[in-house]
Amino acid sequence: MEEVTEAARRIKPHAYRTPVLHSASLDARAGGAVFLKCENLQHVGAFKFRGALNAISALPEEVRARGIVAYSSGNHAQAVARVGQILDVRTTIVMPADAPAIKREATAAFGARVVLYDPATESREAIAQDLLQDGATLIPPFDHRDVIAGQATAILELHEEVTGLDAVVVPCGGGGLLSGTGIVTRALAPGCKVIGVEPELGDDATRSFRTKTLQTVRNPATIADGTRTPSLGALTFPLVLANVDDMQTVSEAAIIEAVRLLFYRLKIVVEPSGALGVAALISGAVTGYHRIGVVLSGGNIDGSTMAAILTETPATMSAHA
Amino acid sequence: MEEVTEAARRIKPHAYRTPVLHSASLDARAGGAVFLKCENLQHVGAFKFRGALNAISALPEEVRARGIVAYSSGNHAQAVARVGQILDVRTTIVMPADAPAIKREATAAFGARVVLYDPATESREAIAQDLLQDGATLIPPFDHRDVIAGQATAILELHEEVTGLDAVVVPCGGGGLLSGTGIVTRALAPGCKVIGVEPELGDDATRSFRTKTLQTVRNPATIADGTRTPSLGALTFPLVLANVDDMQTVSEAAIIEAVRLLFYRLKIVVEPSGALGVAALISGAVTGYHRIGVVLSGGNIDGSTMAAILTETPATMSAHA
Repeated sequence: MEEVTEAARRIKPHAYRTPVLHSASLDARAGGAVFLKCENLQHVGAFKFRGALNAISALPEEVRARGIVAYSSGNHAQAVARVGQILDVRTTIVMPADAPAIKREATAAFGARVVLYDPATESREAIAQDLLQDGATLIPPFDHRDVIAGQATAILELHEEVTGLDAVVVPCGGGGLLSGTGIVTRALAPGCKVIGVEPELGDDATRSFRTKTLQTVRNPATIADGTRTPSLGALTFPLVLANVDDMQTVSEAAIIEAVRLLFYRLKIVVEPSGALGVAALISGAVTGYHRIGVVLSGGNIDGSTMAAILTETPATMSAHA
Repeated sequence: MEEVTEAARRIKPHAYRTPVLHSASLDARAGGAVFLKCENLQHVGAFKFRGALNAISALPEEVRARGIVAYSSGNHAQAVARVGQILDVRTTIVMPADAPAIKREATAAFGARVVLYDPATESREAIAQDLLQDGATLIPPFDHRDVIAGQATAILELHEEVTGLDAVVVPCGGGGLLSGTGIVTRALAPGCKVIGVEPELGDDATRSFRTKTLQTVRNPATIADGTRTPSLGALTFPLVLANVDDMQTVSEAAIIEAVRLLFYRLKIVVEPSGALGVAALISGAVTGYHRIGVVLSGGNIDGSTMAAILTETPATMSAHA
């Protein structure tokens, strides 16, 4: 928790304190008062900015000068690239070739060198290791103390702004945000339940949580591309086991309905991974709470994907997974 | 100005204090720091909620009990309907039959009785007058002191939150928001320029401002459906002449580009009328300012319209006008 407090101080000059939004129609659907922490409105459209900013800011000047390498399915890539641009640090990003075009393009636009790989045949970790030969520092997308502490500042702000929450519901990919949510919530709101949400198609963390044994998934075909990580990490798995109260999964149809509801009712753009918490509330996967904090973790969705969500039926949409 | 301060006090229990957002990429496009007052995140997705809430709240209990009638191309309709639901007042809304489906449906969902008319052959004022026979009160969409004062609270909050603005740029339909912007800005930030923006296809207020004679337009084919009003009003025309520094127009392509930029860069859903201020900044219609306040007046856009904006080229999109 001290590391989270320190991270909050460190990132303050460059990160937004994102708004918390509220909607009567969502409350009615969820059966409780829902408070949406809008990290889709953060720099680069995702909470990942907080983790990258904290981790890179914490490096000594001479280490930063040798450059940064990151591998990411998308939002962490943009975050590292944008932080490099702000702090004037060279960045190289290893991305899957099938990442949404909007994420690849934004990463390059921030001045990063982008190296693509085929997730079906290549290991991004191996490629990143090759790139580290010249002394650059690897900033992983979630399994890193400073990344977790930085991401956790979103939850710190949520509890500061909204007191008396009885549940916080956050998406789970590699478990960085969920780990931070557990640490901060145990410290600041001990009675508040911590709940992670995954797509049914990428339910490795839910299975890991229930079996207490690390489970994996291989490139799952979920529309929630930010959660396609193969498993929890060496740091995040024990943190999830220690500080999380429940894990739930949601269907592709529920994710799509959540993105649509956030568009029409809240007037905000949320990517499928970012809408997992709302999907859990409107599908009934998470129920029985009165004051529920939800992190909308990101807003980077291709226009073509959003267009399909807005104009097609849920049944048709599952083909986009 | 005292009426605006009173309106702020009156609407506080039910209206959101909407966030002010900022974007480095928009600043770069606009050549100055841009502060976006997000009335698309207001109740019913539009600043119109403030005007309707203030006007209906100001009515004596026995007058409210006889019901409310409103005519509106969309957002005012939803606003009156929602306020009626909150304050437990019967509402009847007269709407053009070609208003976006999302606006008609939301109005009915708030419990209002909806009466449709053909804007090509019928007068909405005449229809509304018929409905007033039983003692109901007409709340017009802009040409009413309490409506203008309520809408102006958005600008009051903007100046409270962001000091030192040298320009405020707001959309102009019937001129209610622009009138309130003038009143509040003259009072709180006397050096700050007040600029109204219209679509080129519906430039009646710009022509009225320049000629100092009331000009009209008939059902203009602009995608900015919230600005299809035939002219400024008896109250708003003199207020615009007295307190507005400039009027500018923007092309359909600029409006569409602004909606797209707000989607991709800000991660917010803004309807074409609501994006007029940003359209003026990115098209160069408004230039030369350092700290610019912009009101995003609404977010009620049909999914099919947004899908077309996200997937088609600007040239193709003009066919949607």
